[in-house]
Amino acid sequence: MSIQRIAVIGLGLLGGSVGLAVGEYLPGVASTGYDADPAVREKARERGLCGTIADDPADAVRDADLVVLCVPVGAMRSAASAIAPGLSEHAIISDVGSSKQQVGHALQEELPGHHVIPAHPVAGTEQSGPEAGFASLFHQRWCILTPPEGADKAKVAELVEFWEALGSTVEVMDACHHDMVLAVTSHIPHLIAYTIVGTASDLEDVTRSEVIKYSAGGFRDFTRIAASDPTMWRDVFLHNQDAVLEMMDRFLGDLEAMRAAIKAGDGEAMFDLFTRTRAIRRGILEQGQDDARPDFGRGDHD
Amino acid sequence: MSIQRIAVIGLGLLGGSVGLAVGEYLPGVASTGYDADPAVREKARERGLCGTIADDPADAVRDADLVVLCVPVGAMRSAASAIAPGLSEHAIISDVGSSKQQVGHALQEELPGHHVIPAHPVAGTEQSGPEAGFASLFHQRWCILTPPEGADKAKVAELVEFWEALGSTVEVMDACHHDMVLAVTSHIPHLIAYTIVGTASDLEDVTRSEVIKYSAGGFRDFTRIAASDPTMWRDVFLHNQDAVLEMMDRFLGDLEAMRAAIKAGDGEAMFDLFTRTRAIRRGILEQGQDDARPDFGRGDHD
Repeated sequence: MSIQRIAVIGLGLLGGSVGLAVGEYLPGVASTGYDADPAVREKARERGLCGTIADDPADAVRDADLVVLCVPVGAMRSAASAIAPGLSEHAIISDVGSSKQQVGHALQEELPGHHVIPAHPVAGTEQSGPEAGFASLFHQRWCILTPPEGADKAKVAELVEFWEALGSTVEVMDACHHDMVLAVTSHIPHLIAYTIVGTASDLEDVTRSEVIKYSAGGFRDFTRIAASDPTMWRDVFLHNQDAVLEMMDRFLGDLEAMRAAIKAGDGEAMFDLFTRTRAIRRGILEQGQDDARPDFGRGDHD
Repeated sequence: MSIQRIAVIGLGLLGGSVGLAVGEYLPGVASTGYDADPAVREKARERGLCGTIADDPADAVRDADLVVLCVPVGAMRSAASAIAPGLSEHAIISDVGSSKQQVGHALQEELPGHHVIPAHPVAGTEQSGPEAGFASLFHQRWCILTPPEGADKAKVAELVEFWEALGSTVEVMDACHHDMVLAVTSHIPHLIAYTIVGTASDLEDVTRSEVIKYSAGGFRDFTRIAASDPTMWRDVFLHNQDAVLEMMDRFLGDLEAMRAAIKAGDGEAMFDLFTRTRAIRRGILEQGQDDARPDFGRGDHD
């Protein structure tokens, strides 16, 4: 592989996992990590998230063939500006952000003349911070690259090879289309989960303790999603506004239709929808993107 | 235990699990099962869901001390009418339905003079049918009893003892309050999950195959919930209309507020909500109602 030295900027769940995965699956590749928070750097040294942890962002990227920015989407521009003095001309600058259009523009503006190739590994957990990462996070997960027009094809191929080495399957896509797809498969589900958990915790006639007790009826899966990192998700909604609003309006329209069906006692409309949705689930199981064990009963039937 | 003979009417996920749990945890208790579908009775015999499988509902409940109706909420009235000719005077008639007010009324109307004590074990999976049940489904789960006013206290105590023997913790509650609590912890989450999966599968600019591929970003947990039994859930929404509509309107109000925050770029409002929701998750983990493993990455890091 022509990438022999990588730098990871931001050492939370994603950055830590990239560092650990390089150590595990690319043992010949040197890795240097950096995080703006000294306490995170300390923890990263303890856990050995990267071969070296630098105390300065420009030092961290010195001589790197690939720089992966693993900071919240809203911090990408300032992270790019902080590494700029140390960047080699040949380096690929990539990231792991969940929205791609605005991130791509910000990186290209901050780093003119550099090889900016945004990326989004579609993998994560509800946990965050330097203790949350693990080497196999990207296994059997998709990683979407959104190279800007005119991107160097050889550099794109190198980045594909890198993510494949970490266990991902790579797809190349237009940034605008990425933002629409992820709005529906990730951003709106998170927004809904955060909102319903908020609704439940604000009720007066149902106590918080009751909500917690009886969460096994479906609610607890929403609380898992709604435990995701607040800064990361705030930034996603601030930086993928248009696609999120468009998908949200479609969802709101469909929800209003279900509300009308319930109000009218229209069992047929409900039954139709509830049957149709099973096909999507089957597709997910067939493609190995989830596990078929009945997970509502988690831990009940080992 | 004074309950020495039980009958299970309806042998899907819940009924099958009740039968298997009695076999496992109450080995001295005789169990008879019945399902209106002959193919289900056949499968129930193969799997040994109950000690005996009867071909007639009135025969199934003959001499039973406890009858547990495990049919969809909308079929409770006709199931009650079908068993009426075989019921002993002393028998407790209970159920496992997810809504309680309308079910309680229907059972009392159909079986006047009988000991009707509705119940709702808050346990389940997204799977259904006679192959889906397992004995430990009710372990460490809550079971809510909603005895009508004037219910025989000794009979309520017997039913409590029965569910405790199956591994549940029992709570006694007013049926109306139950329906409100479950609307928010179970019914609305299911409705939301069904709806967003429907929205995603109807998109034109995002293909169904893309939705499936990139589901690891949050969506796949919704598809799991949206794979639940359509008949059961249609009946829940038809029979808990008022509480569901009330909770839905609160959720819709909150979602509109988040929409406005995204439109206005109000990061603070988002951050506040996204931080607040973590407290509920902590409560669920502390009470053992879910497992702390980072489950978004299911199967990735064993």
